[in-house]
Amino acid sequence: MKPSVEINGARLLKRLDDFAAIGATPAGGVNRQALGPQDQAARALLADLALARGFRVFQDPLANLFVRRAGKNEHLPPFLIGSHLDSQPTGGRYDGALGTLAAFEVLEALDDAGIETHVPIEVVAWTNEEGSRFAPGAMGSMAFSLGHIPGDWDDIKGTDGVLWRDALAATLVNLPAAETRPLGFPIAGYLELHIEQGPSLEKEDIPIGIVTGVQGTRWFEITISGQAAHAGTTQLSFRRDPMVAANAALHSLYATIMPEDENARFTVGRIAAYPGSVNAIAGSVSLSVDLRHPSSGNLDAIEARIVRAFQASALANGCTVDIRKTFDMSPAQFSEPLINSVEHAARHLGLAAKHMVSGAFHDALYIARIAPATMIFVPCRDGLSHNEAEYVEPEHCIAGAQMLLQSTLEVTGTVVIDR
Amino acid sequence: MKPSVEINGARLLKRLDDFAAIGATPAGGVNRQALGPQDQAARALLADLALARGFRVFQDPLANLFVRRAGKNEHLPPFLIGSHLDSQPTGGRYDGALGTLAAFEVLEALDDAGIETHVPIEVVAWTNEEGSRFAPGAMGSMAFSLGHIPGDWDDIKGTDGVLWRDALAATLVNLPAAETRPLGFPIAGYLELHIEQGPSLEKEDIPIGIVTGVQGTRWFEITISGQAAHAGTTQLSFRRDPMVAANAALHSLYATIMPEDENARFTVGRIAAYPGSVNAIAGSVSLSVDLRHPSSGNLDAIEARIVRAFQASALANGCTVDIRKTFDMSPAQFSEPLINSVEHAARHLGLAAKHMVSGAFHDALYIARIAPATMIFVPCRDGLSHNEAEYVEPEHCIAGAQMLLQSTLEVTGTVVIDR
Repeated sequence: MKPSVEINGARLLKRLDDFAAIGATPAGGVNRQALGPQDQAARALLADLALARGFRVFQDPLANLFVRRAGKNEHLPPFLIGSHLDSQPTGGRYDGALGTLAAFEVLEALDDAGIETHVPIEVVAWTNEEGSRFAPGAMGSMAFSLGHIPGDWDDIKGTDGVLWRDALAATLVNLPAAETRPLGFPIAGYLELHIEQGPSLEKEDIPIGIVTGVQGTRWFEITISGQAAHAGTTQLSFRRDPMVAANAALHSLYATIMPEDENARFTVGRIAAYPGSVNAIAGSVSLSVDLRHPSSGNLDAIEARIVRAFQASALANGCTVDIRKTFDMSPAQFSEPLINSVEHAARHLGLAAKHMVSGAFHDALYIARIAPATMIFVPCRDGLSHNEAEYVEPEHCIAGAQMLLQSTLEVTGTVVIDR
Repeated sequence: MKPSVEINGARLLKRLDDFAAIGATPAGGVNRQALGPQDQAARALLADLALARGFRVFQDPLANLFVRRAGKNEHLPPFLIGSHLDSQPTGGRYDGALGTLAAFEVLEALDDAGIETHVPIEVVAWTNEEGSRFAPGAMGSMAFSLGHIPGDWDDIKGTDGVLWRDALAATLVNLPAAETRPLGFPIAGYLELHIEQGPSLEKEDIPIGIVTGVQGTRWFEITISGQAAHAGTTQLSFRRDPMVAANAALHSLYATIMPEDENARFTVGRIAAYPGSVNAIAGSVSLSVDLRHPSSGNLDAIEARIVRAFQASALANGCTVDIRKTFDMSPAQFSEPLINSVEHAARHLGLAAKHMVSGAFHDALYIARIAPATMIFVPCRDGLSHNEAEYVEPEHCIAGAQMLLQSTLEVTGTVVIDR
C-alpha cells in the first residue's frame, strides 16, 4: 500500500547531516549540551528553516521550542510531534535529533503535499532531555507537564559551573524571532520518534517499535558491612565476608528476577570492596542496583525480594546491610488509542512492527502524564547510544519519519486537500 | 610441672614497652619501617642491651642482626631464635617485636639461671620482614637462605624514594659495635615466636599455637569482559554481563573451596566493574583472588578449578576471561622433630596448645628451606594485626616467651649447670 503522503527521505538525511555538523566531534558524534552555544545554534537553525517555510516559531519560559503548522481548526489544541536537540558530551547524531528533524520533515512533507490537517501540528524540541550538563534530565518536558518550574531548580549548576538560570536566559534571548508562549498548554497528544537505544529491533530485524510504555526505574545503593581480616589466617567459620554475602544475594536475584519475568531489568553496574586489598577479606562491599519494570506492582514485589535477599545473606554471613533507594521513577503507560493509530500506520505502510516497552527515559514519559502520548522506535546499530559511534541506517531514519507522518495523519484524523 | 628455667615476665613486658616507644604512634601503635631511623634505633637498643650483658653482636651484609650467647660447643652451628624489629607504617607493638624480645629474654633468663647450653644460641632480628617500605618483604631471611643477595634487588626503591642499597648501608654503619659476618652460615635450627595475626587461638581460648607449616599463596587478577549496554533497554537474552559471569563463578567457588577443605583459604578482596555506572551493564569486571593452602598439590587442583569455573561462567554469559597469576609462594612444611620438641615443651609447661598452619608469611618460611624450623604462635586480640590496635595479653606474651625458652632447651638437648 502506498503512504497517503510521502516524506522526502533525501531532505531528511540532509537535515540530519546539517544538524550533526553543529557540535560535531572528531570521532563522528556530537557534543551539543543543553543550553550551550551548540544547542543554541541547532535551535536557531531549526527556527530559521521553520520561518523560511512560513511556520510560526514559539518558545516557552523553559526554552522548549515549538514550530507550528496551522490546521483547519486553529482553536483546537495542537498535536505535538518531536523530541530534543541537545546531546550527551560524547553523544551520537540521532539521539533526539532524529525525532526532532523527522517531525519537522512531517510538517514540510504535509506542506509539499498541500495537506491541511484537522488540528494544528507542532514540532517540539524539549529543553535538556539528556541531563548531562544540568541535572535532572527532561527538564523541559517535566516543567511543561507540571505547568511550572519546580522551586528547587533555582540553584542548579552545570558541570561547567554555569547556573542553569543564566544558561536558560541566554538561550531564550538568542532566539528573538521566536514568539513567547506560557509554560504548558492543552495539547491533543504527543508522538515521539526515537532510536531504540537497545539491540532488540536490530537483532530481530524489525524496523519499527511501537512503544506501549516506559519502564519504571528504581535505583538502590547497597552496602554490606562485615569484618576486614587477614586472607590467610582467617578460617571460614571466623569470616564475616561481605563479598560472600553480596555474592549469595546477587546469585539468587540473578537466577530469578529476569529469568522469571521478561519485562524486568535487574542490573548491578557498580561494585567495590573496601579496603580493596588482594590479601584482606573486605570490610564492606558497596554496589548499585538498577531495577526496571513497566508495572509499579511488580517493582514493589521485586524491591521487596531484593531487600529480603540481601538481609538474609547478610545475616547468614555475619554481616549487616544498608539499602538506600536513590531514585524512583514511576512507570508510564502510553495511550492505547494512540498506540492503535501507530499500529494502523505500520500496517498501512507495510512495515513490520512490534510492541515494546522503553527501558530508557524520554520526554514522552512526562508528556504522557497530561495528554495521550506514545513513541515510535527505530533500530540503532548494536543497540549503541550515548556514544559517538551511534548509527542508524538511512532506510530506518526514513521509515521512522514515514511512520511519524502516517501515524500523525491517523491520529489527527480527517485530512483536507487544500490546493 | 615447673619449667626448668623461668623467664622474667616483668622484664620482658618492660622491654616490649621500651621498644614500643621507638617509633610510637599517637594511636598506640608503632611506625618503625625497615632500615629507617626508628628501625636503626631499635637495633641499636638491642645491641646495647646485648653488649651490656656480655653477648656478642653481629650483623651480616643484609643487616640481619645477631646476638650470640656462647654454648658449650662453640664450634657447632648455633640454634637461632628471633623474629624482626621493623613494623608496618601503622603497625602494632607485638608483630615481630614480641618474637625478637622474647628471644633476647631467653638468653637473659639462661644467663640469670647460669645455664650453659650445648650449642650457642643466637637471637636474630631479620631485616625488612614487613616489606611495606621496601618490597619484597622478608628480604633478610630470604637472602640468608639463598646465601646471596638477588641481583634484581639492586634498584629497589622505598615508598619514600630512598634506594634500598643506601638505606641498608646507612643501617650497617649505624651499628659500629656489631661484628661483621658473611651472609648465610650453618645453623642448628630456627624457632620463631610470633603473634597469630588471626582469631583462632583467641576464639578457642588456647594460649599456644604450634605451627606445622606456612600455607602456599597464589594471587590471581581476573578480568571478565562482556558488553557494556543500557540497563533499561537490554533484555536478558541480549546481555553479556560480566557481573553475572563473575557472580556465577564465585558462587560455585565459595560453595566448594573452603567448605570442602578446612585448610583452604579463598578470598576475593578487590572487585570493580567498568565503566561503573548505576544504569549501565558493565563492560568488564576485575577482581583479585587470594588462594592459600598448605599443600602444593591442593593449590594446583584448586587453581585448576578456579580457572575452569571462570572460563565456564564467562562462556555461559557470552563473555571472555583473562586470568593472570601475579604471585606464587610455595607452602613450607616445618620440621617434624622441632614441632615435637615444641609439643613436649607445651606439655612440660602445662600449656594448652594446638597445631596450626600459618596463613601469613614469616621469616621462618625462608629459613625452613635451609634448616629445621618452626614457629610458636600466641593469641592476639580479635585476630588484629598490621594495625595500631594490635594487642596481646601480658600473660600470653610471657607464656610465649616461656614456650620459646622451654622449646629451645628441648631442642638444644643437654643443658649444663655451670655455676
